Amino acid sequence: MTQWKKSIYTGHVSDGVAEVADGRYPLVENRVQAEIMCHVRAMNRPVSRSEITEVLGVSRSKISLEVGRLIGAGLLAGDGLAKSEGGRRSSLLRIPRSAGLIAAVDLGATSTDVALSTLGGELLIHRGEPGDVKDGPQRVLGRVKELLSELLAEQGADARDVVAIGVGVPGPVEHASGVLRSPPIMPGWDGFPIRAAFADGYEAPVFVDNDVNVMALGEHRDGVGKGEDNVLFVKIGTGIGGGIIADGHLQRGSQGCAGDIGHICADPEGPVCSCGNRGCLEAMAAAPAIAAKAERCAKEGLSPILQGVFEERGVLTARDVGEAASRGDYHALQIIKESGRLVGQVLATLVSTLNPSIIVVGGGVANIGHSLLAEIRGAVYRRSLPLATRNLPIVPSELDQIAGVTGASVLAAEGVLQTS
Amino acid sequence: MTQWKKSIYTGHVSDGVAEVADGRYPLVENRVQAEIMCHVRAMNRPVSRSEITEVLGVSRSKISLEVGRLIGAGLLAGDGLAKSEGGRRSSLLRIPRSAGLIAAVDLGATSTDVALSTLGGELLIHRGEPGDVKDGPQRVLGRVKELLSELLAEQGADARDVVAIGVGVPGPVEHASGVLRSPPIMPGWDGFPIRAAFADGYEAPVFVDNDVNVMALGEHRDGVGKGEDNVLFVKIGTGIGGGIIADGHLQRGSQGCAGDIGHICADPEGPVCSCGNRGCLEAMAAAPAIAAKAERCAKEGLSPILQGVFEERGVLTARDVGEAASRGDYHALQIIKESGRLVGQVLATLVSTLNPSIIVVGGGVANIGHSLLAEIRGAVYRRSLPLATRNLPIVPSELDQIAGVTGASVLAAEGVLQTS
Repeated sequence: MTQWKKSIYTGHVSDGVAEVADGRYPLVENRVQAEIMCHVRAMNRPVSRSEITEVLGVSRSKISLEVGRLIGAGLLAGDGLAKSEGGRRSSLLRIPRSAGLIAAVDLGATSTDVALSTLGGELLIHRGEPGDVKDGPQRVLGRVKELLSELLAEQGADARDVVAIGVGVPGPVEHASGVLRSPPIMPGWDGFPIRAAFADGYEAPVFVDNDVNVMALGEHRDGVGKGEDNVLFVKIGTGIGGGIIADGHLQRGSQGCAGDIGHICADPEGPVCSCGNRGCLEAMAAAPAIAAKAERCAKEGLSPILQGVFEERGVLTARDVGEAASRGDYHALQIIKESGRLVGQVLATLVSTLNPSIIVVGGGVANIGHSLLAEIRGAVYRRSLPLATRNLPIVPSELDQIAGVTGASVLAAEGVLQTS
Repeated sequence: MTQWKKSIYTGHVSDGVAEVADGRYPLVENRVQAEIMCHVRAMNRPVSRSEITEVLGVSRSKISLEVGRLIGAGLLAGDGLAKSEGGRRSSLLRIPRSAGLIAAVDLGATSTDVALSTLGGELLIHRGEPGDVKDGPQRVLGRVKELLSELLAEQGADARDVVAIGVGVPGPVEHASGVLRSPPIMPGWDGFPIRAAFADGYEAPVFVDNDVNVMALGEHRDGVGKGEDNVLFVKIGTGIGGGIIADGHLQRGSQGCAGDIGHICADPEGPVCSCGNRGCLEAMAAAPAIAAKAERCAKEGLSPILQGVFEERGVLTARDVGEAASRGDYHALQIIKESGRLVGQVLATLVSTLNPSIIVVGGGVANIGHSLLAEIRGAVYRRSLPLATRNLPIVPSELDQIAGVTGASVLAAEGVLQTS
């Protein structure tokens, strides 16, 4: 299964292209090969040489040459014959499972998800468990590597079969180095070399990005945003963040913190946020704010349902508020609506700025009830110009729990298939 | 001068690529040719074949072949010899003036600017005059064509030498069709076929975009934003708009109205805007709002300077407010500062969303005094997260009056040099 790697490596060195320590990155030799692989991967079905020739706008002979090399390297394989179009029936191409595996890691503030997928994009196995990024990089990544070893063993594979690793983390990532920079909720991770942490078990290159960017990638390539060029993904959970796909590409901005919308001012008179400013969206509308409002309601005896849960457990979560609202609790519903209205007001500004064709709302809080999404929609439609909203669906995440690992595998696969 | 066009045309048809009515668009035959031309154009200096080979990552023989074809078509020409690097000295390449001219048009709400530049990017001649888009497309574009004819005659050229036309207009443009959609300040232009309006005198393709997008392109390719991948351009004039360059590309969004920031809510308790919402940025901080506040000051006798000008002329402009402020008028200064604070608050939100590496402020109001920019800077730095602002210059437009025509020629040149 790993036979081809060596020949690819040699090819690179002789071309003077490979300048990455592990010597296997990128997998492809040139830009045309990269584009062929990315096209076959994106189509998610067997593809003919003629289709590739047409889409890439490169000559048929060049495509034949490079496809031949990719087959030789084990990155492509034949998959039956195309429908006849009058002439000789051409064979179809796909990315075989033996081309390699992608390891995907999605670290949330309080959860760890890992998955394996094929280079071709098929999700093979996924496992999620509670986790706490506050435990620090050594412990959290140690557990990640244990989980990955288990999944690999279950698939009858090992670390040498992994051709790329994708990691989503809940903090701002400097794109070029893949290192976290002053992550507010991840003490101990500032500047930690995540890539290097995998070097003792894996030869594969590691691609790191912000968790919300990674989820946006997942929804864009494989979820409800598929086929849309301008997707705004919003995660509402412990924090609030945005992932921006513009003109088909994930936008990271100059320091990698594009989409960091949690600290946009939602109300200049609002409460003081951990960042020092007043009325940040996150401080007013994310899960902790929802829970805090619910606890106030419970203590003041305004909501018998919330009061009951609070007296029983001594703490309330955003999920409790969602359940109370679904049982008809007026105050719980108002708390959810207020979050929706605040998020919607900020999204209206983003709609004017970015003119997306779809807004996808994900994260734990997104699931606490229809009224949240209804309120977000109302605020966006009320406050944006008609041209920008006349065809603007605002929908829940389709991938939900697997948005992160799906996006992390896209990040890794597309990364390892780039030539630069 | 137009000899080569025919051969290019024939080449297209035989390749099945040309599907544009005028038959001369695009100028190039394939993607490699397009990338060679765009690279030579962007460098703005003679370029060697080895440099092109290296930058494009295509084989030396392919580059030699396509460069030869571009020279044959008159799109490239030799320009001396490169410095010796041990072997044979290679000749340098540039885009000759005879490759064609670009006509650039920048329509403001109250101004008309036209210019001619070479396909290689040199601005040859520029002329601006007052104009009123409310006069409607027939009259305004009629005058544009008169001006273009005059400029061409002065350059000893004619309409057949023009290979592309770029037009910036003060309203939302549907990118695919180049047509204005419900432009608020341009009655009579809704759906008007601007491209077709040039067809009676020119064979060249016409590229139309929003004026602020076009200015952003100009600043990015030739102004203070040159070399930056993430530029936010903000125009403050009769209206307020934004142009977004993200990851090196102009962002238009799904309907072409990305950057339409004038109707973002600056104050939910603010005055009612022409769009029907309350407290839109444009209604509170653009030139008409500045003038209206100044007139109130004058009428209430708060500012002797403003009162004097108002009594003399019966009307006040944003420029008058700037002059009064520079003469030490307290109320005039407060009016400017309030505009700056409101613009800065909205820009802080855009900084969190886009993480630009530079903000460029242009438009008529940008020139009314340093205090405006100082106030904008203060609001952005106060309200954004440190990671996004630690290296964020907020600077005035460098191209100023010619930002629009510079950007319109970039739009047209890059458009005509694309293969699809």
